[in-house]
Amino acid sequence: MNRKNKGTNAERELIHLFWKNNWAAHRVAGSGSSRYPACDVIASNKIRRLAIEAKTSKDPKKYLSNDEVNQLKEFSEMFGAEPWIALRFDRKDWLFMSLEDMKKSENSYMASVELAEAKGLLFEELIR
Amino acid sequence: MNRKNKGTNAERELIHLFWKNNWAAHRVAGSGSSRYPACDVIASNKIRRLAIEAKTSKDPKKYLSNDEVNQLKEFSEMFGAEPWIALRFDRKDWLFMSLEDMKKSENSYMASVELAEAKGLLFEELIR
Repeated sequence: MNRKNKGTNAERELIHLFWKNNWAAHRVAGSGSSRYPACDVIASNKIRRLAIEAKTSKDPKKYLSNDEVNQLKEFSEMFGAEPWIALRFDRKDWLFMSLEDMKKSENSYMASVELAEAKGLLFEELIR
Repeated sequence: MNRKNKGTNAERELIHLFWKNNWAAHRVAGSGSSRYPACDVIASNKIRRLAIEAKTSKDPKKYLSNDEVNQLKEFSEMFGAEPWIALRFDRKDWLFMSLEDMKKSENSYMASVELAEAKGLLFEELIR
């Protein structure tokens, strides 16, 4: 399975989780290629709206470029949604990180497994 | 251009209109094939959220199936968005119809050019 398909499958998995819990959620078409700020998944339970960038990682550290994170921020602000980064490390559950909890360096945002497990929310906690 | 591409292009045109007017908008991935209720385009200016089913028509009457409209209703309700049907008849501007203003019959919802021009909102009116 190529990288794009793998990403899409991970996003689909998230979508199912939301619907199972009575949230409406969909993938955003062309989120990686749109000329406008975007996110991968948008979810809402009427009261809260979540804009999610979803990433899987084989490595114990996951990096996101400044551009990816800035797009997520900008989209969330304009749409009126909470920005979240959803991370799934190998053999781990999804963990949801706020942008503030990611480790910022000059060109990227990073979360290690340890950081994500310390600061991230489980799905049940995210939607609580 | 096949029908699917034509639909996608019409949706993209709408997306541009929204961003040009400081609304965040995106196409929903797989809106026609998702197993969950969906819409074609979702747009927000932070305060209002619009769930849009977008249709072009060469004919002077446009029909939507009950299923399409019911999906739009259901998604809008769960997401917390206003449901709208965006219609673009040949050589006309986009017109936005509320579900109540469509002509309902047993198996479908219909709008003629005349009905859309009488009841529909122009884009500027929709986002006002």
